[in-house]
Amino acid sequence: MTFNRDYINVGIVGAGTVGGGTIRVLAENADVIATRALPVKIKWLAEKDLQRGQAILDELGLKDTKLTGNWRDLVEDPDNDIVVELIGGTGLAFDVIAAALSAGKSACTANKDLMATRGGELLAIAAEHHADLFFEAAVAGGIPIITSLKENLTANRFNEVMGIVNGTTNFILTKMSESGADFASTLKEAQDLGYAEADPTADVEGIDAARKMAILASICFNSRVTLDQVYHEGITHITNWDTAYAHDLGYEIKMVGLCRLDDGMIDVRVHPLLLPKSHPLASVRDSYNAIYVDCDALEKAMFYGRGAGALPTGSAVAGDVVTAARNIVNGCQGRVGCTCRLHIPVRDINDTVSQYFVRLEVLDQVGVFASLADQLAAAGVSMNSLLQKRALADGRTDIVIITHPTRHSDLLQALDSIAQLPCVVAVGDPIRVHNG
Amino acid sequence: MTFNRDYINVGIVGAGTVGGGTIRVLAENADVIATRALPVKIKWLAEKDLQRGQAILDELGLKDTKLTGNWRDLVEDPDNDIVVELIGGTGLAFDVIAAALSAGKSACTANKDLMATRGGELLAIAAEHHADLFFEAAVAGGIPIITSLKENLTANRFNEVMGIVNGTTNFILTKMSESGADFASTLKEAQDLGYAEADPTADVEGIDAARKMAILASICFNSRVTLDQVYHEGITHITNWDTAYAHDLGYEIKMVGLCRLDDGMIDVRVHPLLLPKSHPLASVRDSYNAIYVDCDALEKAMFYGRGAGALPTGSAVAGDVVTAARNIVNGCQGRVGCTCRLHIPVRDINDTVSQYFVRLEVLDQVGVFASLADQLAAAGVSMNSLLQKRALADGRTDIVIITHPTRHSDLLQALDSIAQLPCVVAVGDPIRVHNG
Repeated sequence: MTFNRDYINVGIVGAGTVGGGTIRVLAENADVIATRALPVKIKWLAEKDLQRGQAILDELGLKDTKLTGNWRDLVEDPDNDIVVELIGGTGLAFDVIAAALSAGKSACTANKDLMATRGGELLAIAAEHHADLFFEAAVAGGIPIITSLKENLTANRFNEVMGIVNGTTNFILTKMSESGADFASTLKEAQDLGYAEADPTADVEGIDAARKMAILASICFNSRVTLDQVYHEGITHITNWDTAYAHDLGYEIKMVGLCRLDDGMIDVRVHPLLLPKSHPLASVRDSYNAIYVDCDALEKAMFYGRGAGALPTGSAVAGDVVTAARNIVNGCQGRVGCTCRLHIPVRDINDTVSQYFVRLEVLDQVGVFASLADQLAAAGVSMNSLLQKRALADGRTDIVIITHPTRHSDLLQALDSIAQLPCVVAVGDPIRVHNG
Repeated sequence: MTFNRDYINVGIVGAGTVGGGTIRVLAENADVIATRALPVKIKWLAEKDLQRGQAILDELGLKDTKLTGNWRDLVEDPDNDIVVELIGGTGLAFDVIAAALSAGKSACTANKDLMATRGGELLAIAAEHHADLFFEAAVAGGIPIITSLKENLTANRFNEVMGIVNGTTNFILTKMSESGADFASTLKEAQDLGYAEADPTADVEGIDAARKMAILASICFNSRVTLDQVYHEGITHITNWDTAYAHDLGYEIKMVGLCRLDDGMIDVRVHPLLLPKSHPLASVRDSYNAIYVDCDALEKAMFYGRGAGALPTGSAVAGDVVTAARNIVNGCQGRVGCTCRLHIPVRDINDTVSQYFVRLEVLDQVGVFASLADQLAAAGVSMNSLLQKRALADGRTDIVIITHPTRHSDLLQALDSIAQLPCVVAVGDPIRVHNG
C-alpha cells in the first residue's frame, strides 16, 4: 500500500496534561516539523470533556481539528494515520491502542503503566498488523533513552543501567539532602509545589519507577520484564539522620532504578541507593531525571533532562509521531518493533547481592561491638566499615555499618538477630550502597 | 527491489583505531545484534596495509571476511550491502562514500572532517540514489546526539546547543583546573598519556570541535553550515592565572562549541568559555564529551559520554550499520536524509555578543580604574564587575574585569585602546563568559 498524501494526519486521545502538551508542541512547532520531515496535521482530538478539548483547540487556533467524545472516530477514519493514546491507565488505553493497531494505524503512547504490564501484548498486535507502536515518553519523559538503547546502542552488551526515573522522589531527596529536613515535611512541600500528588503512593513507594525499569530492562536484555517482576522499595523510611550520615561518608541518597544481567538472570529493582558524590547520577538535582548506562562498547554514558511535564513529555510524544510519520510515508511500519526475543528469568530479590548501609541505635556500653560482630558473622555478613555514632539521650548511641557485598536474605536474617540483642534499641531500615 | 537475504553484508574500509574498534564491536557482539535486529556479517575489509588487516581478522577469528587492498572491491560486489568508510581525510574518503552511494549501497562514516566540509555533496548523492548515509560517530563519538537531534527532538525549536566535543582540550583544561599547572606542561602530560597528538593543532586550536559544530548547527537549524563558517579560538592562551581567577569567581573554563539562532542568523563558534560551576557542562571532566541542549519543548537536556576511542566510536558506527541494515531489509533507505532545507546566513564573529572576562596587568597607582573605565565607556563596553587583583613585583597588579554583553568588535576596540594606556603593562586575551 503506497502512501499518497504529502502530509500525515494524527488523532490525539486525551487532552490532559500530556495530551495538551503534545497538541501544543505539534501545533506551535508545525513549521519545524514540516521542514525536517513532512507536515503533521492534528485531524482529531478525542476528549470526554468536550469543553476542555474545545478550550485547547481554541487557544491554539486549531480550527480544522475535529473534536469528538468518542475515540473510535479516530480509529474508524481511514484518513487518520496515527492514534496517540494519552488518557493513561491500563483498561481503556489498551483498547484504544489495540483498536488503532488492528486497523493498521500507527500508535504512540506515554503510558508507562500500560507498557510495563501489557506492553508485550500490544507489541504483538502491532507486529501482526505491520504497524508501529512507539512509547519513548513512557520512560524519563523527554529524554530519548528508549530510542538510544534500541537503536544507537544496539551493538552494545549492557552491563548495568541505572536511572533516576522519578522526578517526585528525586525532588524530595534533593530537598532533604540540602535542607536536612525530614521526609514528611519535605513531602508536604513537594505537594504544595505540585511536584507530588495528593496521593503520593505510586511515586514514593517506587511503583512509578518500577514501571519504567520493567520497560528498560526488557529493552536492554531482550526479554519481557513486567511490573510485577520488579522489586520496589520506597523512600518513606529515609530519615534526615540517614541523609546526614551518608553525607559524612561521601554519599548522596538517591532513588534509583537499576537493571543488570547477573549470572544469566535479570536483576531489576528500584530502591534508595547511596551513591558516591563523584558519581554522575549523584549530582542530578530536583525533579530532573537521568539514565546512566554502562555497556561494553560505549562504556559509560548518561542521558539527562526533564522526566515529566507537559512540554518535555509532549516533545517525546511528538518525536514518536514524526518517527511514525516517516515510517508511514516510507512504507516501513514495524521497522523496529519488539526486541524481546529471549526468555531470561528475573532474579528473586532475596538472592540479589548489594552492599548495605545500616543504622543502629544501641546502648553505649562495653561489649556492644563484639555482640554485633558475632551476629553479623553468624549470618555470613562481613563489615566493610563500622563508622560513626552520635550520642543520644539515656545512654544510647548511633552506629552506622556499611557491609561488604551481601545476599539480601542473609542481611535480613542478620538484622533480625541483631534486633533481638539486649543492647540494641532500634534497627534502621537498611539502604543499599553503590560503589563502582 | 525487495531484499531477499536474512542477513546483511557489510564492508569496512580502514582498519585503524576506529576501523578496528568497529570490526571488534560488530564481531564480538554479533549475537546481540542478530537478536535485536538481524545478523550482520563483515564480508569485506579493505586495508592498504594487508598485514594490519589480516592481524585483526585473525585476532577476531573472522575467517569468512575477505581482505583486500582495493576498496573498489566492496563497491563492486553486488552482495555487499553497506560500505563503512573509516580511513579519514576528505579526498579518498569522499570517493569511497560517493562510489558506494552511487552504487545504491548504504554508507556509514565517522569522518567529521569530511562531513563538515563536503557533507552536503554526499547527502545529495545519497538522496539521488535513494541510499542512506549515516555519520553518528562524527560528533561526540559514541554519544547518540545526531539521531537524538534529527529524530527524537525533531519537534523542538533549538534555542542553543553547547557542547564539550573535544576530549583532548577537556582533558587539558580539567588538569589545569585541578592541578593549577600551566598549558604547556599539561599539554606535554596529555601527549605522554596519549590524550593529545604529537601535532596537537587541530585539537588545541579548536578546529576539531569546529567540524563537529558545523555538523550540529546544520542539523539544529536545517541549513548547511561548513567548517569555514565556524569561528574557532584555541586554548593555548589560557594561563593558570585565568583558571585561578575563574575559580575565585565561581566558574570553570571549558572549551565549548555553541550554536544558536540569533535574530535570523546562525551564531556558531568554538572557544574557551567561563561556565558557572553549577552548569551541568562545568562538571564534565577529563576526556569525556557532553552536549547540552536548550530547546523549547524538552527544555534542557544533556548527553554525556565517551567522545573518542576505538570501542565508543565503534559503538556509534556499529549502531549506524544496524540502522542502515534495518532500512535495507524494510526497503526504506533514505528514510531520514539531509534535513538542510533552509538557507540561513551565519553571523560574522565581530557581530556576536558575549560577556567577556579580561585580565589586565596594570601599574598599581592612583587613577588607573578611572582611565580603564573611560576607555571602556568610549568603546561602548560596560562593566559587570571589576573584581580582584594580586600584587605583582615592581608596583604592578592584576585586575580582572567581567563585561556586560558586548559586541565582539567593540570589545577588541576597547582592549586596543586600553593597551595603549601608560598605566597598562599587559592585556590578557579575553575569554567569553556564559551566564544563563
